[in-house]
Amino acid sequence: MFKKRVNINDFEEGKYLAPKFDKNGLIPVITSDFKTGDILMHGYMNKKALKKTIESKEAYYWSRSRKKIWHKGHVSGFKQKVKEIRIDDDQDAIWMSVDIGNGASCHVGYRSCFYRSIPLGKIKNSKNIKMNFKEKKKIFNPEKTYKNEPNPTKL
Amino acid sequence: MFKKRVNINDFEEGKYLAPKFDKNGLIPVITSDFKTGDILMHGYMNKKALKKTIESKEAYYWSRSRKKIWHKGHVSGFKQKVKEIRIDDDQDAIWMSVDIGNGASCHVGYRSCFYRSIPLGKIKNSKNIKMNFKEKKKIFNPEKTYKNEPNPTKL
Repeated sequence: MFKKRVNINDFEEGKYLAPKFDKNGLIPVITSDFKTGDILMHGYMNKKALKKTIESKEAYYWSRSRKKIWHKGHVSGFKQKVKEIRIDDDQDAIWMSVDIGNGASCHVGYRSCFYRSIPLGKIKNSKNIKMNFKEKKKIFNPEKTYKNEPNPTKL
Repeated sequence: MFKKRVNINDFEEGKYLAPKFDKNGLIPVITSDFKTGDILMHGYMNKKALKKTIESKEAYYWSRSRKKIWHKGHVSGFKQKVKEIRIDDDQDAIWMSVDIGNGASCHVGYRSCFYRSIPLGKIKNSKNIKMNFKEKKKIFNPEKTYKNEPNPTKL
């Protein structure tokens, strides 16, 4: 679907989009809030999801747990309006800036999926590292929003 | 090395660090500039790299191309001082804010690996998508900096 990767110099220094999808046909996607710069989530796209996202300017991902294309917000209503999409040097990772208004991006209810920070410094017991909550209040109640939808998280 | 993942509610809603490493023993890492919020790179860590990063407050990754632990900046001098590490809801992705001063994070020479943006809207020919350079000037000359080091990028 996209340009073939022929030589490294071309896709690292050149202008043409030639994304690399892994063995499962996926490319990792970093999604940030275009206003605050905070990272909202880390997801994956296949070729079709990338094309739909570029064309519609709304975020589509590949859900690895549900094994299908996932129009972000189609259940919760929290759609992501795409402001910019960038790709990295070797074209195997995507950074997408999105507008989610006052909404949320995390199925647990927080604005960002990255609501906990890991304390830095010497680890005393690596099985017992207590994190700090950087977001204290959920934006929505997942039980109400998702009703009978199963939790996509896997052990 | 880290806490065992026993049930989903614990590691999604709880305080304890229980990261998920994939089949290859890796977790994806988003690295952003703590001053500007720009994404600098997308990499991977194994357990040992994560532990070394937390303890030393300098970024260590797993280099998939070189197949070894990689102390970022050990050749180029562009080390990353870690300001904060966060983990996402299901604990299978890491977001790290770093200080790189006036340095760079991209082996091609740019400050960020994400120096090109993909135009949005209807795609006429997906094999011929021309991107825009968001960074125009390289911070360093990779040929001088890396000398005989091979380019880590793979086709």
